[in-house]
Parts: sequence; structure tokens; C-alpha cells
Amino acid sequence: MIIGIGVDVVDIDRFQTVSMRTAAFAERVFTDHERFQRGGAPRSIASMAARFAAKEAVAKALGVPAGLSWHEVEVSRDDGGRPRLALSGQAADTAAARGITDWHISLTHDAGVAIAYVIAERQP
Amino acid sequence: MIIGIGVDVVDIDRFQTVSMRTAAFAERVFTDHERFQRGGAPRSIASMAARFAAKEAVAKALGVPAGLSWHEVEVSRDDGGRPRLALSGQAADTAAARGITDWHISLTHDAGVAIAYVIAERQP
Amino acid sequence: MIIGIGVDVVDIDRFQTVSMRTAAFAERVFTDHERFQRGGAPRSIASMAARFAAKEAVAKALGVPAGLSWHEVEVSRDDGGRPRLALSGQAADTAAARGITDWHISLTHDAGVAIAYVIAERQP
Repeated sequence: MIIGIGVDVVDIDRFQTVSMRTAAFAERVFTDHERFQRGGAPRSIASMAARFAAKEAVAKALGVPAGLSWHEVEVSRDDGGRPRLALSGQAADTAAARGITDWHISLTHDAGVAIAYVIAERQP
Repeated sequence: MIIGIGVDVVDIDRFQTVSMRTAAFAERVFTDHERFQRGGAPRSIASMAARFAAKEAVAKALGVPAGLSWHEVEVSRDDGGRPRLALSGQAADTAAARGITDWHISLTHDAGVAIAYVIAERQP
Repeated sequence: MIIGIGVDVVDIDRFQTVSMRTAAFAERVFTDHERFQRGGAPRSIASMAARFAAKEAVAKALGVPAGLSWHEVEVSRDDGGRPRLALSGQAADTAAARGITDWHISLTHDAGVAIAYVIAERQP
């Protein structure tokens, strides 16, 4: 049973020049694990844009257009390299209240755009 | 149980210059509720493009590539601002015949493109 | 029950100039049924880009980021013109091992981009 879905597209150039021009934005929106790769190198701007799109898509799927606390929706990678969503705090509470048990996520970027798409599902 | 899915991307500039250059197209494709916001102001071209994409995505999910009567697939907003789909007429009949009980929809636009993505689901 | 989802966006121009500049790539990635329409005419570059995106999206949904044997994920059209996925060989084995019984797919292109979105589902 699907509880909600979300899609978000981000203009990577605009994301870089408008949003990411200050460190304050990056720190407010992304966790350290999102900003840096395992070895400590900064993540590419395209990957960051895709993660930003993921957070927006989760907000849409949750039905909270006013937004979430950004750090409460974290995008990571599992051992196989697949993106994974981890919710915490109020975002996790909202998801539990809606009966969401599973999140599905996929990310892509090319042609200057990053796209995230998510499904919030209740499995028996 | 998922009955069908649909995605559609629309070039917003081309949509404006080609499709929306005549009032006849807008009136044929969109209902009054879609063309105007609650206060009566016309909806932005990006929002209209997303609604157009939504109708195309629904046609794909329903499996009617020949198209639907455009007004029979209406995109509205619920009280929380989330997009909602309402089907009527033959579109609603086709959906019922396929066993569809729930529609999920998400819209986005940036970088000159509008994207709609929908899932038609049968819930027990 | 959703097993996995995948989205992929492809820059059509770049796909044409970089990927499709050699016949070897096209033959390695696409089956004859994908490269040619029923009458024998070559498929449009936008349609090929969408099919390429579909294969990438399936790889994401299956959780095999290292990729699949390209010919084992084939995109066709049913009698109504809707896109359909057919898996064979190891791709089909992986899907069966994950309990996937149904694939849902939708394709779109405009504004120089092709997008594929897929859902791998287990139906009772």
C-alpha cells in the first residue's frame, strides 16, 4: 500500500550558484555524511543536487509542503552503492504516524538536471 | 497492487510558445479550476506545464495512448497544498474497469522542464 | 509490495554524439527489436535514449549498480503501444531471486532529455 510519492528536479547550475554559494546553506541542509564521501573528499555538486532533490521529494511524499528539518532526512548509500533514506526526529515521527514502513528512492543526473523519486510504502 | 504508472516531461518554453499561444488550447485542455488560482489570478506557465504533464502521465498509466478527454483528468490541490487527481466521465470509467482505487501524483519543475509522475494503485 | 524502483535521465544530444557514434555500442546495448521499428526503419534517437534510460533504471531497481548484460533487459511495446519490459538470462534470475513478479515502466522525452521510470513489484 502506497502512502505517498514524490518527485523533484533540480537545475544543477542554479543549485551551485544560488544555493551552494555559502557554506551556511550546505551545513544547514546536509549532514556531514552527505557532504563528504567516505574518504573525506567533498561530494560532487551533481550528487549534492540529487540529495537536495531527494529531501524535497520526501517532503512531498510525507505531505509536509512547509518542509522538514533538513538533517532529519538523510541520504546514504548501502554497501552495494544504492541510495538509502534514513529519517529521524519529527520526520520519522510523521512517517510513523502515516503508517509508512518502507522508503524507496532512486536518483539520477544528466543534462544539467538532478532528479530524485521516492515512494513511501506501508508493508504488512 | 500497482495497476499502472506514468511519467511525463514537458519543455516549459516550448509548451508556452507552441501550445499555450492560443486560448483555444488552454480552454480545451484545462478546466477553469486548473487555469486560475483560487483568487482568480492565472496560474503560472510552469504550473500549467506540470498539469499538462500530469494528464499525459495519467493517460500512460491508464494505458490509453490515444488520449483522454482532457477535462476528465483534473489536477487540484488539497488543503495542505498537495496535488490531487480527480477523474470523471470516461476516464473515471476506464480507471474503475481496471480496478484502480487510488491515484498518487507528484509534480516538479526547474531548469525549464516540468515533470509529473503518477501511480495508479488498487488498494484492498 | 515494492521490491525496488529506478529512475534515469539521459541527455539525448550527448547520448547521440558520445554513445551512439559507433554501431558497436548500439549493437552491444540494444537488441534488434529495440533498434528497428516493426517496418524495419531505425528507431529515433530520442526513443533509443529512453530505452537506454530504461535499462539503467532497471539496473537500479534490481540493485545491480555494476550493470547488467544489456540485451537481457529488453524494452518492447504491447499492442496498445505501451512500453513493456522483458528480462532474460541473469537479469531474469536476479529478479526472480528478489521475488519480483511484475515490472512497471513509463518513458518520456522532451527538452532534450529522455527519462525512464520503473517499479519492480511482488504481487501475491
